[in-house]
Amino acid sequence: MSGNVDRSYEGELKSLDTMIAQMGGLAEQALGQAIDALYHRDPDLAEVTLANDRSIDTLERLVDELAISIIARRAPVASDLRQIVTAIRIALDLERIGDLSKNIAKRAIAIAAEPRPKQVMTGFVHIGEAALRQLKDVLDAYSQRDADAALAVWQRDQEIDAMYNSLYSELLTTMMDEPQSASVYAHLLFGAKNIERIGDHATNIAETIYFLIHGKALGDERPKADSTSSLTLGRLMPAKA
Amino acid sequence: MSGNVDRSYEGELKSLDTMIAQMGGLAEQALGQAIDALYHRDPDLAEVTLANDRSIDTLERLVDELAISIIARRAPVASDLRQIVTAIRIALDLERIGDLSKNIAKRAIAIAAEPRPKQVMTGFVHIGEAALRQLKDVLDAYSQRDADAALAVWQRDQEIDAMYNSLYSELLTTMMDEPQSASVYAHLLFGAKNIERIGDHATNIAETIYFLIHGKALGDERPKADSTSSLTLGRLMPAKA
Repeated sequence: MSGNVDRSYEGELKSLDTMIAQMGGLAEQALGQAIDALYHRDPDLAEVTLANDRSIDTLERLVDELAISIIARRAPVASDLRQIVTAIRIALDLERIGDLSKNIAKRAIAIAAEPRPKQVMTGFVHIGEAALRQLKDVLDAYSQRDADAALAVWQRDQEIDAMYNSLYSELLTTMMDEPQSASVYAHLLFGAKNIERIGDHATNIAETIYFLIHGKALGDERPKADSTSSLTLGRLMPAKA
Repeated sequence: MSGNVDRSYEGELKSLDTMIAQMGGLAEQALGQAIDALYHRDPDLAEVTLANDRSIDTLERLVDELAISIIARRAPVASDLRQIVTAIRIALDLERIGDLSKNIAKRAIAIAAEPRPKQVMTGFVHIGEAALRQLKDVLDAYSQRDADAALAVWQRDQEIDAMYNSLYSELLTTMMDEPQSASVYAHLLFGAKNIERIGDHATNIAETIYFLIHGKALGDERPKADSTSSLTLGRLMPAKA
């Protein structure tokens, strides 16, 4: 692959991948814990998620520093350079996923004592598990350097966006029926949005993997199906309109 | 400054700054337009913001590509390397600010036809202008390489967070009084959160500038005052609790 291979150089590239794998594992754990904490109203579990976020941030800094120093010291050839830049991008997406999971955990703590309709929370777990699956799959695609698996993740993001759209409408309509609990539903709205954004970051990683393997972009426009930011009152609740 | 200066090398570093300045101008414009569009219920203005976001994204890609190729070709000394990495980080924050402004514009279009209480919208303009000022100041701090100005921006982020907290409570209480307009207030809640996050990105840029000039981090923990993600029902509305 590289024009200027030597043992420690290969070792440096490998350790980038090792750190990415560690970050990925921590991000999966954080997301899973945040969803569980929200669903089971478990503030203690949520506190664990908050505590673990620091290690993801630290790893991202380490990936950045090593990557930049490799580029500066080794003047890598194109294919190696692509590998290094890929590591920087993926680390950044994983760090974001950690932050978003942390935010979900905070909201889980805030509303742990509040009652919530079972149906809404089921929709929550539903989209949460879908996002977690996307994250697992895209991390496997990276470790396997499997462009087709990455493409599959990229395409499945539409399903998460669709789940988010329906959960969003469900949360709003429930909120209208229980205005006194508006702050609980506001937390859930933001929590749902965080999960949808985690799905977007998994999709970013899929695009990065595709670029790493094929040397060209997967296409600027992903199939985008989160339309809530342009939802109007009428379109939101035809039943009530 | 650099050990291996030559005319085209200096030229390359300069063009990084030029692209950052362009991105900054576009980001300021996008944020200003999005706030105006929301306040004046002007969907046409919002459409302009959406249309202009592409150029910010393109500039960010160009900054990344040039920065990486400079690092790979020139093997820069520490101080130059810091300058180049700084450009990458700032470009990323500006690209995010563009995305967040675009999202505000989308929501402005969605609720353009809906009635909204004047008081809430005033709070919106208030925080929007504060975020815009932060952005302008931090971009000046960068072009002037002024660490003190950057530090001042960094410290003022608390004010934006405080404005966000009160706007958030105001939006929720208004929502409880008008549950039938919940979807409008949901758009405003997300819009307010976007502005608060734009403030965070301005703060990131301030930290990056400080690092560029002093070669050390401003400190991991910024004075953080957005507490809404852990707001409980009781703490939110003591009046109604």
